[in-house]
Amino acid sequence: MSDSPALSDIRGRIGPADVKAMRNAAARQMTLTKPPGSLGRLEDVSVQLAGIFGVEQPAIRGKAVIIAAGDHGVVAQGVSGYPQTVTAQMVRNFLAGGAAISVMARSGGVQRIVVDAGIASARLPDHPGLRNLRIGRGTADMSLGPAMSREQAVRCLEAGTVVAREVAASGVDLVATGDMGIGNTTSSAAIAAAMTGRPPGETTGEGTGRSPDELRHKAAVVARALEVNSPDPHDPIDVLAKVGGFEIGVLAGAVLGAASERRAVVLDGFISGAAALIAHGLSPMVRDYLIASHRSAEKGHRAVLAHLGLDPLLDLGMRLGEGTGAVLAMGIIETAAACLTGMATFGEAGVSGRTAGDSVMDEAGG
Amino acid sequence: MSDSPALSDIRGRIGPADVKAMRNAAARQMTLTKPPGSLGRLEDVSVQLAGIFGVEQPAIRGKAVIIAAGDHGVVAQGVSGYPQTVTAQMVRNFLAGGAAISVMARSGGVQRIVVDAGIASARLPDHPGLRNLRIGRGTADMSLGPAMSREQAVRCLEAGTVVAREVAASGVDLVATGDMGIGNTTSSAAIAAAMTGRPPGETTGEGTGRSPDELRHKAAVVARALEVNSPDPHDPIDVLAKVGGFEIGVLAGAVLGAASERRAVVLDGFISGAAALIAHGLSPMVRDYLIASHRSAEKGHRAVLAHLGLDPLLDLGMRLGEGTGAVLAMGIIETAAACLTGMATFGEAGVSGRTAGDSVMDEAGG
Repeated sequence: MSDSPALSDIRGRIGPADVKAMRNAAARQMTLTKPPGSLGRLEDVSVQLAGIFGVEQPAIRGKAVIIAAGDHGVVAQGVSGYPQTVTAQMVRNFLAGGAAISVMARSGGVQRIVVDAGIASARLPDHPGLRNLRIGRGTADMSLGPAMSREQAVRCLEAGTVVAREVAASGVDLVATGDMGIGNTTSSAAIAAAMTGRPPGETTGEGTGRSPDELRHKAAVVARALEVNSPDPHDPIDVLAKVGGFEIGVLAGAVLGAASERRAVVLDGFISGAAALIAHGLSPMVRDYLIASHRSAEKGHRAVLAHLGLDPLLDLGMRLGEGTGAVLAMGIIETAAACLTGMATFGEAGVSGRTAGDSVMDEAGG
Repeated sequence: MSDSPALSDIRGRIGPADVKAMRNAAARQMTLTKPPGSLGRLEDVSVQLAGIFGVEQPAIRGKAVIIAAGDHGVVAQGVSGYPQTVTAQMVRNFLAGGAAISVMARSGGVQRIVVDAGIASARLPDHPGLRNLRIGRGTADMSLGPAMSREQAVRCLEAGTVVAREVAASGVDLVATGDMGIGNTTSSAAIAAAMTGRPPGETTGEGTGRSPDELRHKAAVVARALEVNSPDPHDPIDVLAKVGGFEIGVLAGAVLGAASERRAVVLDGFISGAAALIAHGLSPMVRDYLIASHRSAEKGHRAVLAHLGLDPLLDLGMRLGEGTGAVLAMGIIETAAACLTGMATFGEAGVSGRTAGDSVMDEAGG
């Protein structure tokens, strides 16, 4: 598929996880003062981080969340319970510190980078926390034709790679994805259907589920968008252009950019997952860099996770977006790394190992 | 049932959650800048905290984990894969900072209180982080007779209440429970069977699952302990005395003590759950104060959670004990409170609410 020289370059830089570092990390886990495997998923995450960073003992210096915002022309079809102006209002709320992601990032020590990828309203005032990239003033209505041009889709992706690589260069090792955009679960449902081959009924979620009629209408709009545009699943840029969103393209680019710099990507929920599907379609090796933070209550997220082969860390019934699930999981990911690097080995601590006998092992090292 | 004046006093102090504060907190959640319910379990936790602390906007000042250690005579039956000396060795490791709980508590800003509730080895050297309460030098073998006397069981419980109330007085609002004791999943399996009425086959877990034979042997030992002792499920002190452990009694007392001071109790896994069963049997109102941090990979934990009606926050395949799951979940619990108190309302942020129309709501506020 044809993309841009810049994107080709980034895709070429994405290599597989470091298998030797993973082997060494897994071997170290066996020597730490705990029954082997007793930290469960934390051990798996620590080994994955070793593979991403290419070191036996992964350290996490900085954490950041890239929150991309954009508007969607498809809201004209009545697919959202909130007016389009809310996208810009919520971006202001992010910057003022009153949104859930603001509170969570603050308490978790996570740097926020808010990106205006393509909000429909008037340009937002300058703010040190805001990147005004704005590929367009909201997408076109995908139920009538392509959401954006192919050239715009490439620009979104490129912009996302640039932001993520800058974040990586500033010493950030965990990059979370977050989104804001009234109408963007409708776009994500279309992307998920196109990329996974599942019917819109399986990728379109209830949102806050005001009624079965609303859900049927939303799924019908997704089906129409796919019918009108016929996006080519073997050409993820085509899918992004025809049924995507500016913020989704920026996040897909951020996934590629972070992976190209060997940083761990902590995916939020359904919209971040749709972005990951685009990135994965462009460069399947990004899979090694992805950590699914949580299972969203949004129905289509299951199809996305299954397609990517990801098992999320949390399942708390969240469906807010903004990167909230990703930032929440960062504490667990950090802890996973801290245990691998900070725990004493049996030898160092003078703790006896398992007996050779045929006895049964208990939970608390006992 | 007969207990001690001190225990009766504590049980009398445990009141129900503050329903008015919970109602106010739930109402506040509806005004915050997010679709209602979109923070999922975080919203439930925040409302529970409001009920525990009796305020609409719960703040968490300090966090602590009480890690009680004790030995179990039943290890003579070959139920553990590690020698009994490991209990004391691991306590030294906790204090030296090399254990998983040490690393996690450090990175989470959680105060550790290590309690020698009844280790079998020689008395440990004094250490500022260690409380030498030692009710006995390990329990007797419960497969031959009672693990401890009724008087010792009462002393464990009383000691736990004292420690928890001191911790609460020092400004700690989240109290986690943790355990260390070679053989203590066997004791916990017996407690769970006695208190829930389920057969030992459903409460005895594989531990690290070295072989089906070992598991059968362990379940048979649990069955024998129940047969020999006939613990009375309507008298939790009897259950604790006959098939419990010193550390389990101290943790049960800690649950009672924390609840009596209106502090939230963050339960770790299976052993902490067994302790909660004892505390719950003594004072059913403790239920309002319990937060289940994670679902342990240890099989019997399911029976415990079902009996207490608790749905854990995390399910990461962990089975280490020490309080590791509880300390890991504390970050999520803190975040839940921070969102309730720190987020802006729609009015404050100037964000439009939901439209009155019949449209469908998306994930990211869209």
